[in-house]
Amino acid sequence: MTEASLLRAAPDAIATAARRVMARCDELARVSAAEASIERVYLSPEHARVNRLAAEWMRELGMRTWQDAAGNQVARIGDPSAPALMLGSHLDTVLDAGRYDGIAGVLMALEVVRLLRVPVAGSGADGTGADGAGGWTVPLPFAIEIVAFSDEEGTRFGKALLGSSAVAGTWNDAWWGLTDAGGVSLRRAFLEFGLDPGRIGEAARRPDELVGYLEAHIEQGPELDRAGEPLAVVSSIAAARRFQLVVEGEARHAGGTPYDMRRDALLGASEAALAVERLCAAEHHIVGTVGQFEAFPGAVNVIPGEVQFSLDLRGEFDGERDRVWDALARELDAISGRRGLRWRAREVHSAPAVFCAPLLQDVIEGGIRSTLPPRSEEPPVIFSRAGHDGMALGAIADVGMLFLRNPDGVSHHPDEAVSAGDVAHGIRALAEAVLLRGTQRA
Amino acid sequence: MTEASLLRAAPDAIATAARRVMARCDELARVSAAEASIERVYLSPEHARVNRLAAEWMRELGMRTWQDAAGNQVARIGDPSAPALMLGSHLDTVLDAGRYDGIAGVLMALEVVRLLRVPVAGSGADGTGADGAGGWTVPLPFAIEIVAFSDEEGTRFGKALLGSSAVAGTWNDAWWGLTDAGGVSLRRAFLEFGLDPGRIGEAARRPDELVGYLEAHIEQGPELDRAGEPLAVVSSIAAARRFQLVVEGEARHAGGTPYDMRRDALLGASEAALAVERLCAAEHHIVGTVGQFEAFPGAVNVIPGEVQFSLDLRGEFDGERDRVWDALARELDAISGRRGLRWRAREVHSAPAVFCAPLLQDVIEGGIRSTLPPRSEEPPVIFSRAGHDGMALGAIADVGMLFLRNPDGVSHHPDEAVSAGDVAHGIRALAEAVLLRGTQRA
Repeated sequence: MTEASLLRAAPDAIATAARRVMARCDELARVSAAEASIERVYLSPEHARVNRLAAEWMRELGMRTWQDAAGNQVARIGDPSAPALMLGSHLDTVLDAGRYDGIAGVLMALEVVRLLRVPVAGSGADGTGADGAGGWTVPLPFAIEIVAFSDEEGTRFGKALLGSSAVAGTWNDAWWGLTDAGGVSLRRAFLEFGLDPGRIGEAARRPDELVGYLEAHIEQGPELDRAGEPLAVVSSIAAARRFQLVVEGEARHAGGTPYDMRRDALLGASEAALAVERLCAAEHHIVGTVGQFEAFPGAVNVIPGEVQFSLDLRGEFDGERDRVWDALARELDAISGRRGLRWRAREVHSAPAVFCAPLLQDVIEGGIRSTLPPRSEEPPVIFSRAGHDGMALGAIADVGMLFLRNPDGVSHHPDEAVSAGDVAHGIRALAEAVLLRGTQRA
Repeated sequence: MTEASLLRAAPDAIATAARRVMARCDELARVSAAEASIERVYLSPEHARVNRLAAEWMRELGMRTWQDAAGNQVARIGDPSAPALMLGSHLDTVLDAGRYDGIAGVLMALEVVRLLRVPVAGSGADGTGADGAGGWTVPLPFAIEIVAFSDEEGTRFGKALLGSSAVAGTWNDAWWGLTDAGGVSLRRAFLEFGLDPGRIGEAARRPDELVGYLEAHIEQGPELDRAGEPLAVVSSIAAARRFQLVVEGEARHAGGTPYDMRRDALLGASEAALAVERLCAAEHHIVGTVGQFEAFPGAVNVIPGEVQFSLDLRGEFDGERDRVWDALARELDAISGRRGLRWRAREVHSAPAVFCAPLLQDVIEGGIRSTLPPRSEEPPVIFSRAGHDGMALGAIADVGMLFLRNPDGVSHHPDEAVSAGDVAHGIRALAEAVLLRGTQRA
C-alpha cells in the first residue's frame, strides 16, 4: 500500500498545508473571551466569530456552507445526491485552553479537501472545482462534508458533545434547562445567539446520508510522545460519565465551633476527591478527575456548609467505569455517615465506550503507512481516554479517528502543542484515508 | 453585690429594651446586599445605610454622633472633658450571615445608655439628658461612648478588625493595596465610600482618652447552651492567624493524562485541608478552618492546576497556635514533594491572644450576679475562640467582654439565634457593669 499511494499531492503542497493549519490555529487562538488566555465557549460571541472565519475558509475551497440548527458550522462539496463522508472536529475550548484540541482537526480536514480537489488553473478561490462529481483528483463515490462542531467540551453548560449530539439526533430536551455560571439557560443562550430551540431537530442527520465520520485530533495524552511515533490509529473512545456532586454540612462560625460539633462539608468533599484518586488508580485504564470544586459560603471564618464539585470518570470499558462509580457512592455514604453530612449527585453526561469501525481503522492504518518516509511496520493502535465528537456520531455513522503526537501529553493548557511536521504527516494520512475509503465497497 | 444592685431601672423597662434590641436586629437584617440572605460588608452601600440608622438611634438618646475616618459610627454622651468608657461591637457581617453577631452588642449598648440616663419627663428623643455630668441616674466619673465598628469580620478584604484597628491606631499602610473579589482596592473603596485614606490616622484614639472597652456579644459557640447558662465572663480572646494559601500543580486534560503524569493541585490541597483538621484536633483549644477553597481553571474536564484556599487558626495561647502552623507547613512540604506541587502562603492576619482586664472581668461578673433572679454561684468564665473588636482595642484600653448564650452555638449562619430573655439579662448585666466600673478607682 505504501508504494501504491493514491494521493497525487507533492510533499511541498502538504508542507504548505501544514503551515497553513499552524497559522490558522494561531489566528483562531486570538478569538477569545479572555484577554490573556484562550476561552471560547458554546453560543458565545467568540463562537459566532470562529464560525464566520471557518465558513470563509470553507467557501475558499468551493464548498457550500451553512450553520446548522445547533450552531455547528458545516460545509459540503461533491455530488449533491451522494451520501457524504463527514470529516470534522470542534472549535470550542475549555477555559485557559490550548490552541490545537479540536481546532487542528477541523483545519486539517480543510487541507484534505484542498489536496483532493482538481487544481483549477488561475481560478483560486473560485467556488468551482469539486462541486460536481468530476472535481476530485481521484474519483470518489461520495461527497465530503466538514463539520466544525460547536460544543464538544461542555465548558459552558457542563454537558459535553452538545453540537455532535444534535447532529446525531440524540439531543435531549431536558438539556434546555441547563444553566451556565451566570444563570443563563441553554434555551436563552440559543435565542441570544440567534438560533431557534424549536428547530434543533433540523441539525440531525440520517444514517443513510453518511458513509462514515473521520476525525484527526491531537492525542491529549503522552503515549505517542513516549513511543516516538507521530500518528496512531484509534481503536475506541473511552466510556465516560460526568457528575455534579453536592456535599452538605452546616455553615458555622470558624472560631466558636469545637470539632465535635462541626459538620464541615469541605473536609467530606476533600476525602471524596482523594477517594476518586484511590479507587481509579486501583483499576486499569480508568481515570477520574475532580475539576470543579468550590466551597460555600466561602468566607475565611465560616466552616463550609456546602461544597459543589464535578467528577469526570473515563475508562476503556463501561463496566469498569460503572464499578468505580458504585464504589465511590459507597465511599460517600461512609464519609457522610462519619461526618454528619449529606451528599447527592446529578449525572450530567454518560457515554458508552465507542469502538471505531474496523473498515475505518483499516483506512487510517493505510493512511499512516503512506506517510513519508514510507513505513512497513504496524502503526500504533491506542484507545482514547479523552472524549470526542465521534462518541456522539457513533449513533448514526461508522467512526474512525487518527491521533497526532502531543508533546508530553499536555492538553487543555496554554502549553498544548503539536509540531508542523506531525501535522503534515497527519494531513497526508487523513487524505490517503479518504481516498482509501473511496476504494472500499461498503 | 446581688442585693446592692446599682441599677434603678425596673424589670419591665429592661424587658422593653430587650424587645427593642430584637426588633432592631430584624430591621438591620433587612439592610443587605443579597436578596435572600444577610450580607453587609465594609464600605458598601449597606454599611452606609446601617451607619445612618445607628446614628439616628444614638441621637435619640441625646448622644453626639460622628462617623470616624475609618467609617466607624461613633456616639458620645456625658462630661466632654472626661475620659470615656467605650461600649461597642460591629455592624458588618459575613456572607449569608445571622442577625445578632456584633449587631446585638451595639444595640444593647444603646439600651444601657437609655437605662442609665435620668428620664426627662415628656422630652422623648430630645437631645438633652446626660450631655452634662449630671444626666446619669447614678453619678459616673466618665463619659460613655458607643462605637459601631465598621469591619470586624474581614469579609470583603480578607483582613479582619479593620475598623477597630483604625481606632486602636494600629492601621497598617500595607493594607491599602488589599483588594476585594472584584479587584477593588481598599484605597479605592475608601474613596468611593466618601472617606479620605490620608486622614485614617484621625480615627485613632489615645489610651488616656479611654477608661476601658466593654463589649457584649453572642458566644458563637455552644458552651453556655450546653451548661444551661445565659451569660458568661470572657477571660481572653483567642490568638488568631489567617493565611491565604496557593497550591500549584499543572492543568492538564482530564482524560488524556495518566495518574503517573498528574500534578493535581486539588488533591494536594484536599490533603492539606484534612491535615489542618488532624493537627488541630490533636491539640487542646485549637481550631483550624479552611473556609474558602476554589480550584482553577475550574473546568469539569481539566485537572486543577491551582487551588486557592484560606486558613483560619485560633488557639487560647499564641505558642500552641504557632506550633500547629509550623507542623502544617512541614505537612505541605511533604505533600508537595510527593505530588510534584508547589505551595505558598501569605499571612493576612495575626493577633496575639488578648487577656481581659481583671478589673473589667470583676465588673462583668458583678453585672451577671445582678441579673434576676439574683444568683450567688460563680458565673461561668470562658475564653473566646472567636475574634472580636476587643483584640484590636487591647492595644489602647483595658478590655472586658460579656457573652450571651447562643443556642446550639450556631453563628455565621442564618439560623444564628439569641433569646429576648437572654438579651434582657445581658442588658441588665452590662448596665450594672458600667455602674460598677464607675465605683472603681482605676
